[in-house]
Amino acid sequence: MRILLTNDDGIHARGIQALIGELGSIAELFVVAPDRERSGTGHSITVFDPIKVIKAKLAGIKAGWVIGGTPVDCVKLASSKLVGDNIDLVVSGINHGPNLGTDVLYSGTVSAAVEGVIMGSPSIAVSLNSFAADTDFSFAARFTRRVIQNLFKNGMEKKTLLNINIPYLCPQDIKGIRITRLGVRNYENLFEERQDPRGNTYFWMGGGVLEEPQEEDSDVNAVQHSYISITPIHFDLTDYRLVEQYRKSFSQFSHLLGEADDNF
Amino acid sequence: MRILLTNDDGIHARGIQALIGELGSIAELFVVAPDRERSGTGHSITVFDPIKVIKAKLAGIKAGWVIGGTPVDCVKLASSKLVGDNIDLVVSGINHGPNLGTDVLYSGTVSAAVEGVIMGSPSIAVSLNSFAADTDFSFAARFTRRVIQNLFKNGMEKKTLLNINIPYLCPQDIKGIRITRLGVRNYENLFEERQDPRGNTYFWMGGGVLEEPQEEDSDVNAVQHSYISITPIHFDLTDYRLVEQYRKSFSQFSHLLGEADDNF
Repeated sequence: MRILLTNDDGIHARGIQALIGELGSIAELFVVAPDRERSGTGHSITVFDPIKVIKAKLAGIKAGWVIGGTPVDCVKLASSKLVGDNIDLVVSGINHGPNLGTDVLYSGTVSAAVEGVIMGSPSIAVSLNSFAADTDFSFAARFTRRVIQNLFKNGMEKKTLLNINIPYLCPQDIKGIRITRLGVRNYENLFEERQDPRGNTYFWMGGGVLEEPQEEDSDVNAVQHSYISITPIHFDLTDYRLVEQYRKSFSQFSHLLGEADDNF
Repeated sequence: MRILLTNDDGIHARGIQALIGELGSIAELFVVAPDRERSGTGHSITVFDPIKVIKAKLAGIKAGWVIGGTPVDCVKLASSKLVGDNIDLVVSGINHGPNLGTDVLYSGTVSAAVEGVIMGSPSIAVSLNSFAADTDFSFAARFTRRVIQNLFKNGMEKKTLLNINIPYLCPQDIKGIRITRLGVRNYENLFEERQDPRGNTYFWMGGGVLEEPQEEDSDVNAVQHSYISITPIHFDLTDYRLVEQYRKSFSQFSHLLGEADDNF
């Protein structure tokens, strides 16, 4: 079994190191990860600039590369050039901090897993709900190993894409596992306005999560209530409900091409 | 009526200039756009760095700002700081090149429109299927104006999010409009491998679109066949089909927490 590991915290982050330690016993590990933290990069790719690639020397893996690009670059490079397309599973993480609800769109961790499925491998993203510098990733890594063993045992569709968020608690305080949908995450005071030494304005993103009531079956609610959240996700952004609706009321669009009728 | 214009080609791109020329007659225009091309940035945001903001001096608009950040940064800043939350519509584009199928995930143009809806305004992304330097955006801008007038006339849900792709043809050669779903875009020879002057390896993204057979109701197929494609999109990545399936077979997950049973 061949597992590709990546993340958005950078190859030296403790979350990915914990995965290397835990998953080496069940699979051949290939690590292709960014050279530095790339949080918030979402599904961005490096189109116009060269991407530097350096061989990584890490214990416990089959091969590894450090990438001067985004998490999605890492997965694209791994499957098209560095590792090959015979990757059985992509694991992205363990992220230092949660990736819940709408935030999934901005997450390099989750986007790397999405790219894994686009490139043809089942993928999981794993995040731990703690920003503390001394965060202990060992239980999260162990849990990830068990999920993977379980997925391999039960068989996995190629399109399997799981977003896992683990509350940062002693294992005995975790109440269970919930299969969830993505919730909503809004922020207050999103930007701070400041002046540079020459009096020019700049903004800096900050702001705290608004603790809003969440639907009970959401990922946000699960982690708030000490459950591990597992959300199956996909990447087809088509809004099929609206496709149907617009096709039915197509007359509202069909005349838009007419050059003559330009004054409605 | 207040329209926010943004793009990922940068504030000086001809696509957004064409929109300013065309939409000034139907709405107050606010322009908040990146200082340079930001293609391929997807839904990335600038989390750890300051974002420079300079007042833009452009004819034909109510107010404008040039942003040292991504398209999504632009929309977040516009609605939370620069313009305010009373934006009636976000228009992102006109992109110099198509944004079809899976490529939508990587697109700064489409991601800006997605962010518009997240921030509470109906949004549309518009792309023109031409990379030529002398591309004429005038018909695409005119068509965009008509779509907007039509949407305002018929009433728009706040969650309306349309991805519009226009073939680059004389208006009379465009066969019509299709309401579509997102298709698939795969690339061949995605990366070129090269050596730097010191003998180190780097990669550069290139590669051409694989012209694959597409489902007839897809956006890719529509543009290939000289139709304007309008795809309603959303941003809930939850895979509800798999949520149902996993909840039914939850026993495959429920035992994963048990510390004792660690050797399956």
